[in-house]
Amino acid sequence: MKDGLVKNAVGRLVPVELNGKKLMPFKGVGKTPPRRGLTKASVKIKEVKKGESKLLSSIDEAIEKSGLKDGMTISFHHHLRFGDKVINMVMERIAEKGIRDLRLAQTALFDVHNPIIDYINEGVIRRIEGSVNGPVGMEISKGRLKEPAVLRSHGGRVRAVEAGDLKIDVAFLAASQADEYGNATGTNGKSAFGAMGFAWADYNYADKVVVITDDLVPYPCVPFFIPQTHVDYVVEVDSIGDPNLIASGTLKITEDETRLRIANYVVEVLKNSGYLKDGFSFQAGAGGISLSVVKFLGELMSEKGIKGSFAMGGITGFVTRMLEEGTIKTIFDAQSFDLDAVNSLKKNPNHVEISHHYYANPHTKGCVANRLDTSFLGATEVDIDFNVNVNTHSNGLLLHGTGGHSDAAMANLSFITVPLVRGKKRNIAVVRDKVTTVTTPGETIDVVVTDEGIAVNPRRKDIIKKLEKADLPLKPIEELKEIAYSVAGEPPELDLTEEIVALIEYRDGTVIDVVRKVKEVE
Amino acid sequence: MKDGLVKNAVGRLVPVELNGKKLMPFKGVGKTPPRRGLTKASVKIKEVKKGESKLLSSIDEAIEKSGLKDGMTISFHHHLRFGDKVINMVMERIAEKGIRDLRLAQTALFDVHNPIIDYINEGVIRRIEGSVNGPVGMEISKGRLKEPAVLRSHGGRVRAVEAGDLKIDVAFLAASQADEYGNATGTNGKSAFGAMGFAWADYNYADKVVVITDDLVPYPCVPFFIPQTHVDYVVEVDSIGDPNLIASGTLKITEDETRLRIANYVVEVLKNSGYLKDGFSFQAGAGGISLSVVKFLGELMSEKGIKGSFAMGGITGFVTRMLEEGTIKTIFDAQSFDLDAVNSLKKNPNHVEISHHYYANPHTKGCVANRLDTSFLGATEVDIDFNVNVNTHSNGLLLHGTGGHSDAAMANLSFITVPLVRGKKRNIAVVRDKVTTVTTPGETIDVVVTDEGIAVNPRRKDIIKKLEKADLPLKPIEELKEIAYSVAGEPPELDLTEEIVALIEYRDGTVIDVVRKVKEVE
Repeated sequence: MKDGLVKNAVGRLVPVELNGKKLMPFKGVGKTPPRRGLTKASVKIKEVKKGESKLLSSIDEAIEKSGLKDGMTISFHHHLRFGDKVINMVMERIAEKGIRDLRLAQTALFDVHNPIIDYINEGVIRRIEGSVNGPVGMEISKGRLKEPAVLRSHGGRVRAVEAGDLKIDVAFLAASQADEYGNATGTNGKSAFGAMGFAWADYNYADKVVVITDDLVPYPCVPFFIPQTHVDYVVEVDSIGDPNLIASGTLKITEDETRLRIANYVVEVLKNSGYLKDGFSFQAGAGGISLSVVKFLGELMSEKGIKGSFAMGGITGFVTRMLEEGTIKTIFDAQSFDLDAVNSLKKNPNHVEISHHYYANPHTKGCVANRLDTSFLGATEVDIDFNVNVNTHSNGLLLHGTGGHSDAAMANLSFITVPLVRGKKRNIAVVRDKVTTVTTPGETIDVVVTDEGIAVNPRRKDIIKKLEKADLPLKPIEELKEIAYSVAGEPPELDLTEEIVALIEYRDGTVIDVVRKVKEVE
Repeated sequence: MKDGLVKNAVGRLVPVELNGKKLMPFKGVGKTPPRRGLTKASVKIKEVKKGESKLLSSIDEAIEKSGLKDGMTISFHHHLRFGDKVINMVMERIAEKGIRDLRLAQTALFDVHNPIIDYINEGVIRRIEGSVNGPVGMEISKGRLKEPAVLRSHGGRVRAVEAGDLKIDVAFLAASQADEYGNATGTNGKSAFGAMGFAWADYNYADKVVVITDDLVPYPCVPFFIPQTHVDYVVEVDSIGDPNLIASGTLKITEDETRLRIANYVVEVLKNSGYLKDGFSFQAGAGGISLSVVKFLGELMSEKGIKGSFAMGGITGFVTRMLEEGTIKTIFDAQSFDLDAVNSLKKNPNHVEISHHYYANPHTKGCVANRLDTSFLGATEVDIDFNVNVNTHSNGLLLHGTGGHSDAAMANLSFITVPLVRGKKRNIAVVRDKVTTVTTPGETIDVVVTDEGIAVNPRRKDIIKKLEKADLPLKPIEELKEIAYSVAGEPPELDLTEEIVALIEYRDGTVIDVVRKVKEVE
């Protein structure tokens, strides 16, 4: 231990305490079980009597009735992603009321949420525990928050909420359809966004739950994901957002030759791995390479008559087509990633809406992530210990949330698909000695697939043996690194400050890495 | 207070303490909110790691692994009703292992569960907190249990479990289909019994959850009601029971002229009540009169083009036909009462499986019972204060569980449908000065419909006014009582002992009445 820092199991110096709160360093996968005797967070029992109304006239009234005060914790889900209007709408009213020093426990923020930057700088928001992408992350990197942000995986967030590590006072939950008694869904209505898995932790454990909808229907709203028994207030607004923008950003299949080559390598590895047989299951990320893998995988399974068991979301039309064609039996959907997924969830009984608790909370009696055969995941960097970074760019800037990355990496055979180098000048080595930030520990990563070759984690001797006979460019990861360095040059030492601006929490609640304040931003 | 007894709000002498545990007397509907600061029962967080198996080879192994010990509490649901085999199967193995003094927290027992009597007498079962019907109830009446039984309504049981009043150590939950990781349903499989609403409280709050199935399918079992995240063990058995026996007993439409008259009166009252319009909702019990009411109601709504909002279970084919014909928009099903209901739940997305928590737990942010327009309920007795008995017969014997009676009585317009007198000799006055046992308080009962006339609760001046113009045999309830007494004679004073053998708990957790030990049983 040095200056209150200890080296954790992936070799990172992390604090053991922060603002009086004890922290646990990452000890290795499966090495930190729930604390002995730990029980689920206590939730107040509240009686809504017959005849009482939950319908309020405005967001303002909901904020007032919820009892929101300085220093409390508020939450939102991000199912509408780039099209979300609810976070800004609610924050604007909260700021207007002069409430300050809030902890924001959103599931994620995108560019559309840039007004958050002003609320940070004005002192409305003091802390953030949730995923951040883009500009708000950059603001955190600049040290604008009064306390370090905490970033968790999808499963890790539910774990934290359920374990009482992250107590939410008021949850404001967007619903594309709801009734005046609080039954609410994302599958119907003009702004339908599909599965609402993120909301599970919030409606179960927040002290006060406010449903915000732009389609108030006569009781009962069926189907519902949020049940009336867990909702305090309902507010109708003109628009919760634009579902057409759900699919913006990363959700396009790649046309880039390099990336297509990577996708093809993944499928070739799969073919030879022994996993691709009846009962096969997978999860794909939202990146272009992952989407291409799913497309090729679907074609291959269909051609070979392999009947898959389940696909786990983010779900897109590439996956729903596999369900329709009978290539897979079930879709587990906690977050719909395009409108094809939204429509499929609505009509196909084998497209099942689940929570992120069910998907990936490690401290349950068994989540879906435990059952995955394979996952196809992206990265900003990978190191020679197979540790993966998805949170920061190689300049140290915090620009991405963790998503389900470390959750899905629990698959029996997890893939990282990355170009070997990045940057317009091809000057950033993606495979390197040490990742800037460890998001996902190398012990959970099995295969790194790049355009210049494939590295299998030496822990997986079984897979190495199976692939030896195949015509694949297998290389030790150190060799991939060397090639990367020969193209992009050795990564420069980052000149960051000592100040910690964010904690990267592994899904079991331990600190796997920290993000430090940048000196200046280019 | 006298000898530790106080008179409660329905005039019954009830104990304020029992075996060291404080009891609350019934104070009136809505007068006993959740205790200040009361939180939901704490549940241990347990991690099932990747690769761990939940599948066990036998009930014996499940009992051993669950850690079941003398004095603990075990639970079962009764969705298979008269066809259930699981309770006896598990109890036989528990008894064989010499485990004693258990508290049985089943949702209900029927004639098929008569082996329970031996386990009571042998000391395997010391206490019962759950519904009892028939022979086991008679055994309780004889004072065979070492401590008084506690009977609760469906909503009251979930309330008790969630509030921590009834802590379940091990729940053994029958499923007609499940996978080896614990996802489980009642809607598919050879023994499909439909909705599994009773299991919600148990899988959420029991310390250990064992799923017992006779149809183990490849992962994932979809749809599921019990999620894998809440299941410790799975056991496959040859048969969980015979679903053809679900519908035995009370579930036949009446052909009796007297009862048909009662059903017709109900519909006439409804027609004039102002409630029967678009958006109408109802719940019907499983008695012959209630079923006839539903049949007539469906015909009437269809004829008049009235579009109902929802029907609440127990669900039968009479209700599913209304859904299919579009007479109602939604079915909320927590317990399927016949195979038509089982099939409808399987195929109709507007037939929605819900928990008894959602249906009727009064201490939530608003249950379905709060939203009911009308309910049609049976009774063994009704008194001139409109208090209703469904637990005991007029000889004082405890022969029926409470079911959803006091829950459904929360409807805006609740009906009790009873013949004025009972017994082969027509010597039992059903309407009387005082019911033998108060199950449901008179303040929640609006209309008592008998073959000899209709009594409206004087609290409902609005309804009395509306019915005055209709051609209906309205009578003060005292007059109905007089007619009953003129036919059956005045009810004899019951010659019971002072010993309390059962507490009747109202849905809010207060004691509304007690059942006393009988001197001898005819």
